[in-house]
Amino acid sequence: MKTILNPNPENWESLCKRPVFDRIGLEKIVSSILRKVKNDGDRALFDLSENLDGAVMNSLRVPESEITGSAKIIPQNLRNAISVAMVNIEKFHRAQLINEKPVETTKGVKCWRKSIPINKVGLYIPGGTAPLFSTVLMLAVPAKIAGCTKIILCTPPDKNGNINPLILYAAFVSGVTDIFKIGGAQAIAAMAYGTESVPKVDKIFGPGNQYVTKAKEMVQLDGIPIDIPAGPSEVLVIADRNSDPSFIASDLLSQAEHGTDSQVILVTDSQELSDYVKEETYKQLKQLRRKDIAAIALENSLLIVLSSLEQCVEFSNLFAPEHLIISTTDPLFLAEKVLNAGSVFLGKYSCESAGDYASGTNHTLPTSGYAKSFSGVSTESFMKKITFQEVSPEGLNNLGPVIEQLAEAELLHGHKNAVTIRLKSLENARFQ
Amino acid sequence: MKTILNPNPENWESLCKRPVFDRIGLEKIVSSILRKVKNDGDRALFDLSENLDGAVMNSLRVPESEITGSAKIIPQNLRNAISVAMVNIEKFHRAQLINEKPVETTKGVKCWRKSIPINKVGLYIPGGTAPLFSTVLMLAVPAKIAGCTKIILCTPPDKNGNINPLILYAAFVSGVTDIFKIGGAQAIAAMAYGTESVPKVDKIFGPGNQYVTKAKEMVQLDGIPIDIPAGPSEVLVIADRNSDPSFIASDLLSQAEHGTDSQVILVTDSQELSDYVKEETYKQLKQLRRKDIAAIALENSLLIVLSSLEQCVEFSNLFAPEHLIISTTDPLFLAEKVLNAGSVFLGKYSCESAGDYASGTNHTLPTSGYAKSFSGVSTESFMKKITFQEVSPEGLNNLGPVIEQLAEAELLHGHKNAVTIRLKSLENARFQ
Repeated sequence: MKTILNPNPENWESLCKRPVFDRIGLEKIVSSILRKVKNDGDRALFDLSENLDGAVMNSLRVPESEITGSAKIIPQNLRNAISVAMVNIEKFHRAQLINEKPVETTKGVKCWRKSIPINKVGLYIPGGTAPLFSTVLMLAVPAKIAGCTKIILCTPPDKNGNINPLILYAAFVSGVTDIFKIGGAQAIAAMAYGTESVPKVDKIFGPGNQYVTKAKEMVQLDGIPIDIPAGPSEVLVIADRNSDPSFIASDLLSQAEHGTDSQVILVTDSQELSDYVKEETYKQLKQLRRKDIAAIALENSLLIVLSSLEQCVEFSNLFAPEHLIISTTDPLFLAEKVLNAGSVFLGKYSCESAGDYASGTNHTLPTSGYAKSFSGVSTESFMKKITFQEVSPEGLNNLGPVIEQLAEAELLHGHKNAVTIRLKSLENARFQ
Repeated sequence: MKTILNPNPENWESLCKRPVFDRIGLEKIVSSILRKVKNDGDRALFDLSENLDGAVMNSLRVPESEITGSAKIIPQNLRNAISVAMVNIEKFHRAQLINEKPVETTKGVKCWRKSIPINKVGLYIPGGTAPLFSTVLMLAVPAKIAGCTKIILCTPPDKNGNINPLILYAAFVSGVTDIFKIGGAQAIAAMAYGTESVPKVDKIFGPGNQYVTKAKEMVQLDGIPIDIPAGPSEVLVIADRNSDPSFIASDLLSQAEHGTDSQVILVTDSQELSDYVKEETYKQLKQLRRKDIAAIALENSLLIVLSSLEQCVEFSNLFAPEHLIISTTDPLFLAEKVLNAGSVFLGKYSCESAGDYASGTNHTLPTSGYAKSFSGVSTESFMKKITFQEVSPEGLNNLGPVIEQLAEAELLHGHKNAVTIRLKSLENARFQ
């Protein structure tokens, strides 16, 4: 962990730099995978699973019996915990369903919006060292609330062609309709283009490694929308001298254990606190099971000391962290000044793990500074809004002449004529 | 115009096909332009303007005096018409600002969302045959309502290096902060990467030709978000035997005059109406000033006769049109069944021109079937939503054990420890 004392604001930008990947090399590999799946469908998926994941399979789809059977393998107390998390996620995401009222913009001109679910959505859930069943809940629960008809999930099988039962169980209880044993860029390709087994979806969601992320970026060029571009996970903690160094150290470590490229930053107005946090972080690190991963992430992590808490928030706004923990004496005061962040945790008991699992907020959030323009995943991410308008004869009489003038000025006489012909007919009717 | 009687539903997909462009050729040209601007900044912009637009300029920024001076050139009645349109756009887009209430998901766990403006946005306005000042209003008004700090506009100059005063005036009254005389893919590059003159923006909006559209798609790979991917403009009209053929013809033509690649479709349950519309369309075409453009668009346009109005909506949902006009006896009944569309116009007096200019709805809408997963531009397009959460000691006592179990099951002990360490401290405090 590197301590940086009062960096010159001119150097803040460089402190906000995220790791950069070899984009061109990655694009070549991924575009070849995308092409294979587009051309050869299922056959390409079987080949790639064998070659890349070392899994020989005779079917891509997880059979119904295996999905429902997963419940028997999961201990009751864990099933209860999943249920509590799910209820909270449901509460928060259901509150996002809002009925907007029509607006009468001109007498006789009524305009409104209606939210409609995206029909088919595809969720990607990474495999690897930890079975991220919490991400299944975070994506499938809002998809279900939105009303998506098909909720398709792809996740890589292990060497024996199996999926972790926790992932199957989470998918089962949260309303996923189809599960496929496909990982990596090929899973994204399968959902983007469709194959004999996998339906083509209307939007793709979910985290993944560099290949998955790049594949999601690249299928956008073929018109397939994605949730958010992604990078390594991040936390930035703002703390003052009254903060508890052991709490903060635990938060920094809970981020650092995600991966060696995790971004972990403390910004504080107290050098003393910064030193305590550093000491405490290395102490707690020793107890951590994933300490080898966390230790590497900590090597790149920063402890930044600035002259005031206001400056700390300013730095945070420039960094635009995925997770922002404000663990100061008056966190609500600073929260008002937050402009760029994915999800904000206020006060000493609001640890990031709460939002990662069970408080109800979504944990699929913008990383790499994308919080400057992207929101995290929400119920709206699974819907689109259609505008409607109804113009009455009175409305057209009121607004028609304005439209005619504007269309004329844009030299679009066809647009003008669509109004003129109607206004004339209304006038004729009046004299009949 | 080609009439298609009762096509087999198996062939509907092929009737929904949109024109396809040479993607690879386009990507090569555009990526070379993007690279030039990224490397050489303003110098590349001057060179490209000279080589591609034939405009020799000594400054990219439109001076303040030229912007404010535009008002003097615009006739009073046109300024009034612009003002009426602007007020309606404001009314509809201001109603989209919604304050969400906090949700207490578990006793002591409070979660909420807050909408925050995207700081700097870039708007692209095409040049060419028609001065699309209405698009300036459609983008700048919601940007202003959202609260964006910088609203930057790029639009191509004519051969003399000038911008149409209507564009300048619309930009002036709707709150654009900076105007640059830059067109094409190079304008998108300038706003995506920033140059000496043009600030780098956080999101890019606006329509354009194939080069602009491809450039917008491609800068996404560098992490710059865009409004919606774009294609040629479209209208689909659903009508029955009681519809007025001359009204419908005028709507089809108002779309056809946009460009030779405009998509124009009538779907009806009445062959008689379809024949009348065809006749009337060719009659009105003769009067149209842009008849050469419209005539080419009509060559590819379809009149589809199906067996019921329900089938007509089903077809429309598959097509997912940018604009959908429902001009039937009971349009509200059919509107309930609409699943995919950008903007819907209900009843015989709701012509598309109303929404294009002045009713208040946005005219920046998803084309090419993107309406299946994208919404049109709205006030939300210029904002992002940040989630907040506040967990009280009581909240952590309630939810902590659940989080611990879930983190344990995901093998993320650092996540678990962030809760455990806090729960322990609460317990210790209780016994002190």
